[in-house]
Order: sequence, then structure tokens, then C-alpha cells
Amino acid sequence: MPGSSELRVAVAQLAPRIGDLDGNRQRAASAIAAAADAGAAVVVLPELCTSGYVFADAREARALAEPVDGPSVEGWRALAGDHGLVIVAGLCELDDDGAVRNSAVVIERGELLAVHRKAHLWDREKLCFVPGSVPPPVVQTSAGRIGVAVCYDAFFPEVMRMLSLAGADIIAVPMNAPVLAPPLEPLVADLITACASAQVNRVYVAQADRTGTERGVEWVGASVIVDPDGRMLTEKAPGEGLLTATIDLARARDKAFGQRNDVLGDRRPELYSRAATVVASEHGDTARPGLASSAIA
Amino acid sequence: MPGSSELRVAVAQLAPRIGDLDGNRQRAASAIAAAADAGAAVVVLPELCTSGYVFADAREARALAEPVDGPSVEGWRALAGDHGLVIVAGLCELDDDGAVRNSAVVIERGELLAVHRKAHLWDREKLCFVPGSVPPPVVQTSAGRIGVAVCYDAFFPEVMRMLSLAGADIIAVPMNAPVLAPPLEPLVADLITACASAQVNRVYVAQADRTGTERGVEWVGASVIVDPDGRMLTEKAPGEGLLTATIDLARARDKAFGQRNDVLGDRRPELYSRAATVVASEHGDTARPGLASSAIA
Repeated sequence: MPGSSELRVAVAQLAPRIGDLDGNRQRAASAIAAAADAGAAVVVLPELCTSGYVFADAREARALAEPVDGPSVEGWRALAGDHGLVIVAGLCELDDDGAVRNSAVVIERGELLAVHRKAHLWDREKLCFVPGSVPPPVVQTSAGRIGVAVCYDAFFPEVMRMLSLAGADIIAVPMNAPVLAPPLEPLVADLITACASAQVNRVYVAQADRTGTERGVEWVGASVIVDPDGRMLTEKAPGEGLLTATIDLARARDKAFGQRNDVLGDRRPELYSRAATVVASEHGDTARPGLASSAIA
Repeated sequence: MPGSSELRVAVAQLAPRIGDLDGNRQRAASAIAAAADAGAAVVVLPELCTSGYVFADAREARALAEPVDGPSVEGWRALAGDHGLVIVAGLCELDDDGAVRNSAVVIERGELLAVHRKAHLWDREKLCFVPGSVPPPVVQTSAGRIGVAVCYDAFFPEVMRMLSLAGADIIAVPMNAPVLAPPLEPLVADLITACASAQVNRVYVAQADRTGTERGVEWVGASVIVDPDGRMLTEKAPGEGLLTATIDLARARDKAFGQRNDVLGDRRPELYSRAATVVASEHGDTARPGLASSAIA
């Protein structure tokens, strides 16, 4: 619909196989084609969807890493051009400086527009990857302004806020969320953060998680598209599959919340730049010797 | 259990009546007594539990305001002493400077330890109250370090983060959440923010909401106690009632998340102090003339 601010978003929940670069590229290509068939203007693929996730060690991660002019990104550039959509996807990247990074790319019409290197590394990723040292990007595309956060990045409200303050309409979250503990009810942890980030920033969140089991690790399958009210627009995908929703970019650009509020305009940055006021009292921890009376940090 | 870091927390979901100062004080006193009977070391009462919420105008709010050495707080000081617990409660405050504020107090053993003036005002509160201009407090008590955020304050992840960084074990949230729209499923918006804030900061959240109908406004009844995993420890209270849970302060002081992560230690403040990287491209908004091509703010 020309002139409309509505468009279709897709997130692909995939089950890559560790080390199967060719098979994983094929899996991603099929998902991209399916998204295009579904009329999506943008498709988000999971974190590390080229390589798999559960690396035996740093050497294996390095062996599966490829530069952003390597075959995976080259393939996605061609597919983005052929299908006329925006692709956000995670890959195991061999960076120019020789570091192996957990990265996500934003591609449109054959062009690599941005690379985000995951800035907050989870668990054994710390053994395999060098974290990024640049703030996450917001990329102007024909499908709106797309912010990017990779998995644990999105757990940090600071990241989702800074992307929103920089004008993101949609925050794309390539994810690989392992099952860590008995899932929270009625919403798993990774859906709670997606919904909360969407509602407090009045932004769309398009999260592409993985599924299946890899070297004994099970995955949550927390793929979702959330609207600026914090409302989930998609049902849980039980396994591999594509979730789609129609979104309206204009809604993400209106930060009004009720008649007199604005979720970004109501911020009080002059308060946030100071520490919370700490009130000591004589009723402190001495009453509870089980707790270390460490200084408040 | 001497030496233990476990204690019982209570949140009271109440239905104050607008303008009924004496009745509301009695309602609060009953809830405090019930919390003491339930063995609670700390009880949280709703926002504006002295006055009610749906003021006709600023004049009515002023007529119902009282100073922190007025009868409500004096009464709570006596009750805190008699019952040996910590009270966190919201009131319509007439501040020393003559301003009417939406405030919350923290009281222990007859002492007023802290007053927090709501810093983020919601909707018509902007017509009735002057917002606070001081960062929210973390108060050292015998029931742990208690951070305070009043209702819409807690919608700002910056507030919950700064309280956690200042050492809060429990963030007490006196709340009056009106029903704004069809509730989010399966968790209402005010529970999503509580669960998200708890899990990303690994802190307890003790939220006391109101219930009932006041001048045509219905209330969500989103009272809850959430643990540092983001797990709700309480069931929804259908009307007025007391929710209690046993918590372990030591859990809120351990920010470890899995074997190699720490939700506060993993922050990258050097990235958050900069703006997100904005990548302009020729595929920008021109493709969607329905959207204003405003500068990214």
C-alpha cells in the first residue's frame, strides 16, 4: 500500500546444526524465501545461524567463523536483492582484526548496511568471542529504522533504551536462548524482557530465537514479534518455523502514552545521572548477621 | 531464624475511598496489623493510600494532602514501633515548600527514615502534583536495603537500575494502576515491568497496587512479589487482601547469572554513555512517504 506506514515483519525460528555451514546457509536461505513469500519487508534470523552455538572450544568457533565478505553474507546480499527485503541475521564472524565475534548484519538490496558485534557475552561465549566495543546500531532502511541487539544485549535495558532514543522503530533481536532453569510462568524470561522493552520504549521488538537440541543444550524457542503496547502479535512456534505480523511504523514513532505522557519525553535524565539516595540507619544489617555488611556498591 | 537472611514480605492490595482520610488510615492500619500477624518484617501499601487517587482537581488533592509529620505518618510510626516491622506506604503529601506531592515513606521503629517524592507523574497527576527532584532512595533497614519507586517511576528501567546499583535488595513499589486498555495476555503490563525489573537486576520487587472502582476508574490489582529470577511468588489477589512471601536477601545480593555472568557487572556503561550508532542509507523513509522524515531524535 503506497504511502502506508504498515509493513509485514517476519522472524524465523531455526535449528542450525553445529558446524554444518552449508546446511545452515541453506536453512537460512529457505527461511528468507519463505519470508518473502509471506510478503515480509524484513526478516530476522537467529544469532549464530551460520555456525550453530555450542562450540567445543574457541578453536572450533574460529574454524566456523567467516568474514562479512564471506559466503554467508554474500549469499544474504544476493537474497536480499532477489527478494526485495531487509535481512537481519546473526553469524559467527571473523573480524578484520582477526578476532572472532558474535555478530549480526543488516542487509538491504544487495548492500551490507551495518554489522553489530554483540557487546554483552553470555557464559561460554566469553571463551570464544571478543565482545564489540561500539554502541549498537539503528539502521535506516525501507522497512523503517531497525535497531539491533544480539540475545543477552537485549537483557540490558540500557541497550533497548539507547536504540529507542536513537529512533528505532523495530528492534531486531537475533537470539539463542538456552533453557536454564524451570521456565517462568506464564511467560518465559526471554519473552518478559521482549514485552517489557517494547512497552517501556513503545517500539516493536522482532526476536528470532532458535529451537531444537544441540550437544545436549535445549533452546527456549522464544521467537516473537511484540507491538509498542507490549502485546505479543505472534503465537509460540513449536519448532522451526516462520512467524509474521503486520506492524505500523507510525505507532513506534508516537511515544505518547495516554493523553499527557510520553515514554521518552517523561524521562528524567538529570536524576539518572546521579546515584540513588542511600539512607543509612541504625536499623541496618546488624540485625541480620547472616548477611555480609558490605558497602553498598 | 537468627542469623538468617530470610524474611517475610507483605504487600497490601487496598481499595481506599477518595476523601475518606480517617477510613483510609483505618484500612491501612488493619493491613499493617495483618502483615504483622503474618510475620512480615516489611509491608508495602499502595500509592496515595491515605487520600484515594481520582481527584476532581488540584484543589481537592491539596485539601487531602498532609505533611509527613501529620496524622497518617504519625500513625504509621506508632504502628511500625508497636508491630516491629518496616512500613513503605504512599500518601498525598503537603511538602514543606507548600507543594502537593505524590510521595512514599519508609518507616521503622517509630522513625521516618526516608520520603520519596514521585519523579514521573502519570496523566492527571500532572495537574495535581509537583514531581520530586531528587533521585529515589535506597534505605538501610533491618529488613534489608529497600529501594522505593512510586507506580510510573517503576516504568522507567533507569529507576529500577539505579536503585539496584545503589544496593537495593527489595524495590518497594506503591502503585495505583488504572485499567487503560484491554489487558495484555497472559501477563498485564504492570506485572511485565515488575518481572522484567526483578530479573534484569536480580532484585526482589514488592508491588502494592490498589483495587476496586473509584469515580468510574477501575484498577488493575497488579500487586505482586517477584524474586530475582523474575518469578512471581504470589497469586493475583482478586480484591482487597494481603499477599506475603518469604524472601532471601542473600539472593538479591548475588548478581551472578549462570556461571560466568553478573547482571550488574556485565554492564558496558562506556557504551551506554554514547548514542547508538545511526546508519543512514539511501533506502530510508523515502520509500514510505506515509512517514514523516523527521530527524532521528
